[in-house]
Amino acid sequence: MNKLDNTYNLKQIGIIRTPYENSAPYQPLQNDENEFILILDEKYKDGLKELDKFSFIYIIYYMHKIKKEPKMLITPPWAENKTVGLFASRSPVRPNPIGISIVEIKKIIDNKIYTSGLDAFNNTPLLDIKPYINDLDKKSNAGYGWILDTNNEEHLNLHIKGIPHNH
Amino acid sequence: MNKLDNTYNLKQIGIIRTPYENSAPYQPLQNDENEFILILDEKYKDGLKELDKFSFIYIIYYMHKIKKEPKMLITPPWAENKTVGLFASRSPVRPNPIGISIVEIKKIIDNKIYTSGLDAFNNTPLLDIKPYINDLDKKSNAGYGWILDTNNEEHLNLHIKGIPHNH
Repeated sequence: MNKLDNTYNLKQIGIIRTPYENSAPYQPLQNDENEFILILDEKYKDGLKELDKFSFIYIIYYMHKIKKEPKMLITPPWAENKTVGLFASRSPVRPNPIGISIVEIKKIIDNKIYTSGLDAFNNTPLLDIKPYINDLDKKSNAGYGWILDTNNEEHLNLHIKGIPHNH
Repeated sequence: MNKLDNTYNLKQIGIIRTPYENSAPYQPLQNDENEFILILDEKYKDGLKELDKFSFIYIIYYMHKIKKEPKMLITPPWAENKTVGLFASRSPVRPNPIGISIVEIKKIIDNKIYTSGLDAFNNTPLLDIKPYINDLDKKSNAGYGWILDTNNEEHLNLHIKGIPHNH
């Protein structure tokens, strides 16, 4: 496997405004009443034409607050006796701190996209936006993986759905 | 919007083997009999533990063959009279050439993940792998956006499903 020490430069194309300064939910909250806005650099504004015809978008961002070194084996906070590989998890501490969220578009005004709840910190650098397309991105036969091995489905559901709770 | 000239360094974590050297389908082909393999750098191998419990994964990669400057307004090759914004499209020519594909896991052997068909060139640098989780990533109310504005749904379907054809 040649060329494995390559690095690639990505540039910020906008900024993500969320209410989360120091802690964020594990996943987007359902029916979050806070304001979530993607503000695109003015020079990319025309790239939003017709985007509002889609219900959902992927947003791709750089998780700038993550400073820890990734570990290849992790234990999810809600599954004490379970050890899984990092790539079998959504942990943000990864070799490349790229975050992907699927959000609903509420409205687009000028260079601003107002979206449904989003699990990113305020001022997170935006890297890309792609439309979520029904047949391409909806895998009807997708499963839950190792998540169903745990005996704590109810608690787990809170994490999957991003509902705040105490441990 | 401060700090907008930021750039971020990402590192290659593996390499993607596909049969496509100079041309690739627009989307993964269904039932492609070719071999598609993600080869992870040995040092990340443990990060694959339990990944095979999932049916589908997101793979995130750097589209290293894209050298063109992106245009904010594009006309899809199959929709001659339609102009849409770049971010309302899946065009690979973007400010950040990050590709995302959802593929099915066939088998994982050591540091190699054998997958279903994939619309990336051979030797594409791999940046991340994340599990596709049923409830999180499947949006039952997602639509088709501007794509249904075109009057050529049959032809369009070939593009959406990645079926090769002539224009």
